[in-house]
Amino acid sequence: MEELESKRVIALMSGTSCDSIDAGLCEVMPDLSCRLISGINYKYPVHIRAKLFQIFRGEASVKDICRMNFAVGKCFADACQVLISEFGKPDFISSHGQTVYHYPFDESLDGISLKSTLQIGESAVIAKETGCPVISDFRQADIAAGGQGAPLVCFADEKWFKGRNLAIQNIGGISNVTVISKEKETFGFDTGPGNIIIDYCMNKFFNKPFDNDGMIAASGNVSESWLDCLMQDEYYFKNPPKTTGREYFSPVYIENALKFGPENPKDIIATVTALTAKTIASAYERFVDTDIEEVIIGGGGAYNPALMKFLRSYLPRHIKLKTHEDYGISNNFKEVMAFALLGYCRWYNIPNNLPSCTGAEKRVVMGKLTGC
Amino acid sequence: MEELESKRVIALMSGTSCDSIDAGLCEVMPDLSCRLISGINYKYPVHIRAKLFQIFRGEASVKDICRMNFAVGKCFADACQVLISEFGKPDFISSHGQTVYHYPFDESLDGISLKSTLQIGESAVIAKETGCPVISDFRQADIAAGGQGAPLVCFADEKWFKGRNLAIQNIGGISNVTVISKEKETFGFDTGPGNIIIDYCMNKFFNKPFDNDGMIAASGNVSESWLDCLMQDEYYFKNPPKTTGREYFSPVYIENALKFGPENPKDIIATVTALTAKTIASAYERFVDTDIEEVIIGGGGAYNPALMKFLRSYLPRHIKLKTHEDYGISNNFKEVMAFALLGYCRWYNIPNNLPSCTGAEKRVVMGKLTGC
Repeated sequence: MEELESKRVIALMSGTSCDSIDAGLCEVMPDLSCRLISGINYKYPVHIRAKLFQIFRGEASVKDICRMNFAVGKCFADACQVLISEFGKPDFISSHGQTVYHYPFDESLDGISLKSTLQIGESAVIAKETGCPVISDFRQADIAAGGQGAPLVCFADEKWFKGRNLAIQNIGGISNVTVISKEKETFGFDTGPGNIIIDYCMNKFFNKPFDNDGMIAASGNVSESWLDCLMQDEYYFKNPPKTTGREYFSPVYIENALKFGPENPKDIIATVTALTAKTIASAYERFVDTDIEEVIIGGGGAYNPALMKFLRSYLPRHIKLKTHEDYGISNNFKEVMAFALLGYCRWYNIPNNLPSCTGAEKRVVMGKLTGC
Repeated sequence: MEELESKRVIALMSGTSCDSIDAGLCEVMPDLSCRLISGINYKYPVHIRAKLFQIFRGEASVKDICRMNFAVGKCFADACQVLISEFGKPDFISSHGQTVYHYPFDESLDGISLKSTLQIGESAVIAKETGCPVISDFRQADIAAGGQGAPLVCFADEKWFKGRNLAIQNIGGISNVTVISKEKETFGFDTGPGNIIIDYCMNKFFNKPFDNDGMIAASGNVSESWLDCLMQDEYYFKNPPKTTGREYFSPVYIENALKFGPENPKDIIATVTALTAKTIASAYERFVDTDIEEVIIGGGGAYNPALMKFLRSYLPRHIKLKTHEDYGISNNFKEVMAFALLGYCRWYNIPNNLPSCTGAEKRVVMGKLTGC
């Protein structure tokens, strides 16, 4: 086996909210620890972002998808260039891509499974523009092995936090948790919505992309009856491994839910913010039998004090609430750092999925290598 | 540089007609020659094929494309298994995939090029099912380098036929030529329709998938006036490098053309068959300044005697008409053999595009490597 060396990796990620491409230059060490050297948020050009939402809404043709794969690849390359111009070329680039569809369901056609996932952001474009090898398309190999292709960050959480009883809770568009235990196998799943419903409602009622500092949520009142109703969604009762996404918590889903919501838009924001917190707390209660000492919050939700306050109130008192920053890991670039690690493993052919989290039948090496 | 060794490669290809997946076990030698050990045609399951045509018609959603990428990957894997069960595992698999869109046009959004191509047939599924490494997604790197992502087979033609003045004419759904010259650089382009219009009309008027042995064409009369009219299409006048596809010679295109066609369906078949032959001959006249000694025909069109007769009549008398079989290369599996070679080159990081054919700004290594 090839001897492992430290590698400088630019990792690329864009979440379901499409706010921006997160790009981070990282150093990954042979012990699989990872250090962020520099991270940036690169905004999508306005028409590209609009086209992405067109794809999310299911209004895109095969032509749109074909073209956007290359266009998004160029945006990813441009994000890399910002880092390369300052720090020089990395050893390679690890790109998660932009998920445009995720279908982790057991359905078949002509006896053939349709379980699948689709990320765009053409790796050949990134390789050409940067002159660096690119590793991409991680989730595919896990799905091919019978997994859900998510969550993948658990693998990094295990490497970085193993040795205590912890929940590592990411609150992005969707919320997902990794449960690390001293005795038991690491596992993880999507707890449900993160900011996706909050952001949708902020946009609809306040024409803003998100609830800055949770101010609107803090100014409204939670409708307990509507919250109880929202908490009945079958997803929250399903046993892990389970993943969800924008396809499930879709505009149609949210619009249907809003029919039963309070009239005051502030109360709506307060309630859907409480929903994210309550689904997280109830997921721990239902599915986690490790006695958690701490919850480490990451993702954009960590910056929403109203959401944090709800979470504090729904979680048992003895559980401490911390952020990644408390452990020297960037809140904003944690996922990016995880994909630097996943890419590093693909580089050296080290299996990089966790079947206990994804449900895959075995450990596999995820990622495809594009030369330059 | 790593020393080259002979490799056993299963190459996979499915053309625009979606008749079947062509799978060939090949041995590729360090001198880049290639021998077909065994080739099969693997029929797509009926609903999968129907879904593919739904994608071609532009009626597929992002969900369909996401799911079909995995489903087609399974079909490709199943095709491999037929060969593996008889001959054992190859060193690796080289998969062209199923093209569902090809957009070689200079258009942009937010200043970002939309030139692109999309092949489906998830490589991670093929790798998982077969336990072999897979090389896939060839065309992307050429497009990223400013090329048209096609034609790629020229590279193999040059390796296999260099040293004489030849035209190597493939007649598949689309027709493409490689021009090999003793003195000049190899070049190639799509001459226009191959069987795509013939097959469409056979289906429409005779409810048959193709004109078996060219019998219908032979029984009809060519409408010279309609043929002249069809020959006016601007594509035929465009200078190479140029490529085309099902997106251009689409059902809408053909239906529009049929409005001006003869009434007798046999005459229609005769005329569109003549069209394929005449566009080939006129492409040579317009764009090829090498004094060609021979035209070597490949692809399904080689089995259509009516088409061959038209071609003979339109080409200058001194040019000999041969088939690949005359050179010990399977007519049916020539493209497959070419992709075995392209995959072999990716395996050893040998540049495998020909900028003189694709228009790319430089030679690049095409293909992505998925482990298993």
